[in-house]
Amino acid sequence: MRIVVFGGDGFCGWPTSLHLSNLGHEVKIVDNLSRRNIDNELECQSLTPISTISNRIQTWKEISNKHIEFENLDIATEYCRLLDLLTNYKPDAVVHFAEQRAAPYSMKSPKHKIYTVQNNLNATHNILCAIVESGIDIHLVHLGTMGVYGYTTSGMKIPEGYLDVEIPSESTRLKSRILYPASPGSIYHMTKTQDALFFQFYSNNDGLRITDLHQGVVWGTNTKETNLDERLINRFDYDGDYGTVLNRFLMQSAIDFPLTVYGSGGQTRAFIHIQDTVKCIQLALENAPKSGEPVHIFNQVTETFRVRDLAELVAQLTGTPVQRVDNPRIEADENELEVENEKFMKLGLDPITLSEGLLMEIKQVAEKYSHRCDKDKIMPKSKWRN
Amino acid sequence: MRIVVFGGDGFCGWPTSLHLSNLGHEVKIVDNLSRRNIDNELECQSLTPISTISNRIQTWKEISNKHIEFENLDIATEYCRLLDLLTNYKPDAVVHFAEQRAAPYSMKSPKHKIYTVQNNLNATHNILCAIVESGIDIHLVHLGTMGVYGYTTSGMKIPEGYLDVEIPSESTRLKSRILYPASPGSIYHMTKTQDALFFQFYSNNDGLRITDLHQGVVWGTNTKETNLDERLINRFDYDGDYGTVLNRFLMQSAIDFPLTVYGSGGQTRAFIHIQDTVKCIQLALENAPKSGEPVHIFNQVTETFRVRDLAELVAQLTGTPVQRVDNPRIEADENELEVENEKFMKLGLDPITLSEGLLMEIKQVAEKYSHRCDKDKIMPKSKWRN
Repeated sequence: MRIVVFGGDGFCGWPTSLHLSNLGHEVKIVDNLSRRNIDNELECQSLTPISTISNRIQTWKEISNKHIEFENLDIATEYCRLLDLLTNYKPDAVVHFAEQRAAPYSMKSPKHKIYTVQNNLNATHNILCAIVESGIDIHLVHLGTMGVYGYTTSGMKIPEGYLDVEIPSESTRLKSRILYPASPGSIYHMTKTQDALFFQFYSNNDGLRITDLHQGVVWGTNTKETNLDERLINRFDYDGDYGTVLNRFLMQSAIDFPLTVYGSGGQTRAFIHIQDTVKCIQLALENAPKSGEPVHIFNQVTETFRVRDLAELVAQLTGTPVQRVDNPRIEADENELEVENEKFMKLGLDPITLSEGLLMEIKQVAEKYSHRCDKDKIMPKSKWRN
Repeated sequence: MRIVVFGGDGFCGWPTSLHLSNLGHEVKIVDNLSRRNIDNELECQSLTPISTISNRIQTWKEISNKHIEFENLDIATEYCRLLDLLTNYKPDAVVHFAEQRAAPYSMKSPKHKIYTVQNNLNATHNILCAIVESGIDIHLVHLGTMGVYGYTTSGMKIPEGYLDVEIPSESTRLKSRILYPASPGSIYHMTKTQDALFFQFYSNNDGLRITDLHQGVVWGTNTKETNLDERLINRFDYDGDYGTVLNRFLMQSAIDFPLTVYGSGGQTRAFIHIQDTVKCIQLALENAPKSGEPVHIFNQVTETFRVRDLAELVAQLTGTPVQRVDNPRIEADENELEVENEKFMKLGLDPITLSEGLLMEIKQVAEKYSHRCDKDKIMPKSKWRN
């Protein structure tokens, strides 16, 4: 297949691009390098020493003899260039990672709220609009988030995108399949629930073929391909804005910094290893919807854990103490979370479990690069409400 | 109350501003005059000869001795000026009409899709973000649309914003009150469904007090206040993009142009007279939610009609023939529509019915200004799919 990866320089986008290239697909990365610019703004760097995009691509060429194209393009603001790209490159599929993806960053200030809304909504809409205008039959695979569901405490298992409900009315009980009612917990998550409405509309009105992947919290750093050479290494964020909970714990344990649990730590979250992320994108691309089919929605998660249990697991493995800090988020202190993930399991996903991968991740990444850590960046600074 | 009316120069905004001013409220209109600029783009004018905003305000001062302030400001792009305005003016409430509001215009071309998405979503989000940043307790009243519901054929009565559903699960049947599942029929309608998610989030996260009004198709032109002087006259659109169905029929009958029914005309729509619109805004302002209450959602409609029945009614009154044309929209050919509107009825709305107001509208507006009609602009030109 010929595939464009929007956001192909990012944490999920880069290993996905390599994985798809390694499978023999023709890959073009489109990225405005915004995540590297945000590193500048936050005065923080990936724990791992990531190379420039040109070095990454050059290294991949040396190692695999496969060429990945790259174009620096802001799809949220450069619609005409985006349309030209689709018209000239004629991809079979595009993978869309090109959104601001940190909940704390999206809540940092009015400027960050507005940036997240503008960037994410315009990026997604421009892709959809350009696919229609190009007239090319392109399958869109979009990285969504488990956060569109909100966090249930009802004990119900969260289905994959659609919910079967019954509507009691005067004479009868109507049955209906609806998009799972959105309950986002941050500006970032909210934009993903609004993306879902873009997809529903363009699928219905224009017959676009769309797959939306509701991903859990990603952990781990490297994949089979990024492990081949240090110049291919993937990003590892540990700061209060971009560091996701488990990677933060791993890095904290590596530098003997207490494991910071927000609030009671009673929040249950869904997780997936980055190696499984790239496999899921592959499976989604290989199993595209037909024109006229509703949007495919998959839950891209493999395990669920309560945050305080994760902290205790890491504490046991490493001897690092746990420290409770005020929760900067507005959310329930405790929640259950059960998630269906049968669709990917049936397609052949063979998950990496935390118990297998955790120690390796600590030794090969967190400890190895711990000298690069800036401890001042660890604590949360973005608050959900002033 | 001190009230800002965003979009206060438009079809609903202008009569609302006068109505609120007449009630003794302090009113400030904020508008970027985009609707007048779109007249230039479409090479079409209001059938009624509307005055400039300065003449309108000057006339109102002469007649009522009441002053309405005006500021030309694009709230979708000028966040800092918007924030300054809230901080300095300190309104008790803002009414938000400042969105591109024609479904056909939003489907005209990629440029128009992108404009509608950018303008509507950024405008709504900027208002919400600025209210939070201002720290002032401001009630937001937003004009939504019945189109967020889609058009049901199930025989169910559409509730006011929220739907009570039951979710069958293994052991029990969970009951839940959810936002009515969105099913928008155009890019314009889609932005309003995305607005609803903005409101839900800012209500939950920041405790903002928000009222969302799902309005039907507005008919009629003038209100008590705009009728006081011809220089206060309201806009009347009849063109293929902005002309809503009933006003289009009235104008067609006035110039003996066949009444153009799209498709079978079997679509049932909800209607409301412009005089009732301004009354509803008043009622919404007087009955604000308390902080912490979920978003208030009202259906702002008074009657429902099937389009072909409306055409026949106008044909009987005026002798103008009916003509079927291809439907440019993608929608069901026939639909039922029953809508709850008890909330406004209980608050004292006393609706103007079609049977009372129709003939007056034909004589006092459509016939009086029929010499201003450009017949080339009547037929629909925007298609939902190429």
